[in-house]
Amino acid sequence: MARMALDELRQLAEAVLRHHGFIEDQLRAIAATLVAGQRDECAAHGLYRLLGIVATLKAGKVVPDAVPEVHDVAPAIVKVDARGGFSQLAFAVGLPLLEEKARRNGLAALAINRCVHFSALWIEIEALTARGLVALACNPTQAYVAPAGGRRPLFGTNPLAFGWPRAGREPFVFDFATSAVARGEIELHRRAGKPLPDGWGVDAQGEPSQDARTVLEEGALLTFGGHKGSALSAMIELLAGPLIGDLTSPESSAHDGGSGALPYHGELILALDPQRFLGPAVAEYQQRAEALFAGIQAQGARLPSQRRFEARARSDAQGVEVPDALLADVRALLNQPTSSSTRG
Amino acid sequence: MARMALDELRQLAEAVLRHHGFIEDQLRAIAATLVAGQRDECAAHGLYRLLGIVATLKAGKVVPDAVPEVHDVAPAIVKVDARGGFSQLAFAVGLPLLEEKARRNGLAALAINRCVHFSALWIEIEALTARGLVALACNPTQAYVAPAGGRRPLFGTNPLAFGWPRAGREPFVFDFATSAVARGEIELHRRAGKPLPDGWGVDAQGEPSQDARTVLEEGALLTFGGHKGSALSAMIELLAGPLIGDLTSPESSAHDGGSGALPYHGELILALDPQRFLGPAVAEYQQRAEALFAGIQAQGARLPSQRRFEARARSDAQGVEVPDALLADVRALLNQPTSSSTRG
Repeated sequence: MARMALDELRQLAEAVLRHHGFIEDQLRAIAATLVAGQRDECAAHGLYRLLGIVATLKAGKVVPDAVPEVHDVAPAIVKVDARGGFSQLAFAVGLPLLEEKARRNGLAALAINRCVHFSALWIEIEALTARGLVALACNPTQAYVAPAGGRRPLFGTNPLAFGWPRAGREPFVFDFATSAVARGEIELHRRAGKPLPDGWGVDAQGEPSQDARTVLEEGALLTFGGHKGSALSAMIELLAGPLIGDLTSPESSAHDGGSGALPYHGELILALDPQRFLGPAVAEYQQRAEALFAGIQAQGARLPSQRRFEARARSDAQGVEVPDALLADVRALLNQPTSSSTRG
Repeated sequence: MARMALDELRQLAEAVLRHHGFIEDQLRAIAATLVAGQRDECAAHGLYRLLGIVATLKAGKVVPDAVPEVHDVAPAIVKVDARGGFSQLAFAVGLPLLEEKARRNGLAALAINRCVHFSALWIEIEALTARGLVALACNPTQAYVAPAGGRRPLFGTNPLAFGWPRAGREPFVFDFATSAVARGEIELHRRAGKPLPDGWGVDAQGEPSQDARTVLEEGALLTFGGHKGSALSAMIELLAGPLIGDLTSPESSAHDGGSGALPYHGELILALDPQRFLGPAVAEYQQRAEALFAGIQAQGARLPSQRRFEARARSDAQGVEVPDALLADVRALLNQPTSSSTRG
């Protein structure tokens, strides 16, 4: 393991992205999320993603110099056309207008369209809770998951994230896939030759399967929580797909055409302003929410994201550990030919 | 079983409510939801509820002549103070302004405060999808459910409902409790002396319990879907409690003080207008949503609410069946002393 300061990590990520032709606004927004993922010990959203980002670029499936366009489509709706770039810069340029609309109206929506997406949603949720706003976010991905009672991939792993601001503390935040597990977990079971736990996937007949290869190649993943999780996943397809004029997970899979690039689709973020809902009573009701959190923790249960915030405190103080092999792979990207000649 | 026409059912429900002192606006709104529940063969939200309604009235825990007040608190927020009445009339009087705000701004919220609540949320969801709006609704209940990793009742059974309008068809609608099962299911297991399936509840130490009495009296119910369902349930507490200036489930339990009345708390409903999100592209993206629904049904999976809509078609054609014993209990309410003298 190599220990790195967060700033050192950021500089490395930015250097790799710059080398491969991302413009400054894009690469700063992307690198910030990679550092945040590594810092919070969410390795799957950390430095490791640079490998997929460069592969996606080489496949011609992301636009490295995209300049997102902000469209003010209704008093409580802002849409950002990412124009084929990654989602991060699109979120950043849409955030000020989302905040303004939420404060003016009480709630507002930000729809990001035509973006390539790999970011953890908690990063965006925390940008909103840091501004005192309650936030929800979701997006489709690609078709990996069968609906309850089905047997073929249709839904994405469709994450849902929520945040509640807490005065003087880390916010209450959750961010989970509506699939029973991440695809990567099933891949790890395949490599290790281990049987899958019940509830992770089905075979081509829709019967429960413990075989990772069968689930990945012939059947489908399942949602968490049976028909309820399946209903939630369908809701996310609709809200962050057709409602915002963007792709469902099967449409995103078709767009990808088997290239294995990071997925291209939209994202929906809602922001709600407690000040507008509560007026002068806001402090009283924030205290009532604190009583609920205390009631969770008093019985030995954790708040979601508690481990992540503990990791963050460690990383802020001591930097992060990066596996030597990953660091070597990432540094090797600096010596690869630039992707500008291969842009699609 | 007695077979009754829907109109006959409505007249009976209205007569009972009128006899017990509900004002006309209140009783019409309440009876309409009881008929809808019975019609869709959701017996737990049907005629049977009249028994709990009258018991709640006699306990002094609902105001039968409440006139809800509409407050236009922000461009995208309408609040309705139910003033201690049932939620149905409060929803009905808030609906026109919610619709207007959603159409003007793209999305809007209706917060119902200080209501007594027993209605299925799909009834309100369908009122919005019938107007071409996408809808979300949720509410706390009373403290029955432990957070994941905990062992004491804290969350309610906290329903979450969603609807998507479909041109010329029944809408896509789901409405589920975030508890693993309804409390009534556990009560039925207790009466039948049957062990509970895994995942329904825990004992006082937070260990899984198959004993219905232990779960109901010493431990707690669990949410569906483990820590993900628990996170969702917490979100509903926050959105439909402190955010709208109303009670969390433990606060609602404290308010009840063991009377066993129907619960008193708030409710949050969001409405989103596809026309404002999509403009002229709305028809194209409605077709893309239809392709998703077709992809669900083509693999033998059901859409949520499919059984309910089938029941509705049967009931519209043939009326409903009501158990004789229930009908006798309901008719007996017409011979009880009126509750006006016992009002709290």
